[in-house]
Amino acid sequence: MQVSEMSGKECRELLARQGWGRLGCALDNQPYIVPIYFVAEGDSLFCFATLGRKIEWMRANPRVCIQADEIRSRYDWKSVVVFGRYEELLDDAEHEQARKHAVTLFSQRDAWWEGAYASDEVRKHASDPIPVVFCVHMTQITGLEAEPDAGQVALDVAQQKW
Amino acid sequence: MQVSEMSGKECRELLARQGWGRLGCALDNQPYIVPIYFVAEGDSLFCFATLGRKIEWMRANPRVCIQADEIRSRYDWKSVVVFGRYEELLDDAEHEQARKHAVTLFSQRDAWWEGAYASDEVRKHASDPIPVVFCVHMTQITGLEAEPDAGQVALDVAQQKW
Repeated sequence: MQVSEMSGKECRELLARQGWGRLGCALDNQPYIVPIYFVAEGDSLFCFATLGRKIEWMRANPRVCIQADEIRSRYDWKSVVVFGRYEELLDDAEHEQARKHAVTLFSQRDAWWEGAYASDEVRKHASDPIPVVFCVHMTQITGLEAEPDAGQVALDVAQQKW
Repeated sequence: MQVSEMSGKECRELLARQGWGRLGCALDNQPYIVPIYFVAEGDSLFCFATLGRKIEWMRANPRVCIQADEIRSRYDWKSVVVFGRYEELLDDAEHEQARKHAVTLFSQRDAWWEGAYASDEVRKHASDPIPVVFCVHMTQITGLEAEPDAGQVALDVAQQKW
């Protein structure tokens, strides 16, 4: 297996075509990871959620991490890690334009709201889920790509699993 | 889509059969996520890595998160989140038994060392990769499971993607 660094352009392309990954936030240095959909555009990842633990934590500490990958086998994968800053796109005059833009981007996805509304907190407070639109401003983006050696390709095909 | 909480037993079964997920650590409240292999046993997740950023961060702050999932489609998935505490199984008399036990567990996996040795830090310091065996002691484990409605099953089959 040969591992190499991905370029910034390659990392951004993966984020754009993948459109989902894991969001990490932290409170009192306790990290918390949840799966999340996003739309990548420029240096921003636009996300949608409903009020719950991860939003409360990111309001208290805006330092976040998003990780996304494409894994074909143990020997053939790409993984991108983003460090960024959380900004909530509030339903107010200041954020109106950015919020509308985000919702336009989301609406190009089929059933884009469904993951957010499935969350634990929403089910517990189902009468009043509070939608939250936010943006992660990317401050650092890195990625690694693994390519299999010839023998490993054969192994993958033989096993059809990893 | 119907979402329900998984029992502790179901969460542990997913961790045991999946054997990999994402590890989150944090330093100065900056979270960092990396893919990781593990072996689940009791209240422990045994892991192997080489010295690098995640190990340095976990030595400084042992509060970690591990997330693992099984995703069949947008409407049919399971996701488990573990909060835990990092303990390094040092190569000394105190940890000898636990470390040996971990390595025995790892060795039941084909090429278990490969992910660790592919990391960025290892490639940069390839002459002297330092192996690290560690355990995550699980302090909290929760999981959610989504089951599709009838129409969503049909949609999945029709689209063969999500």
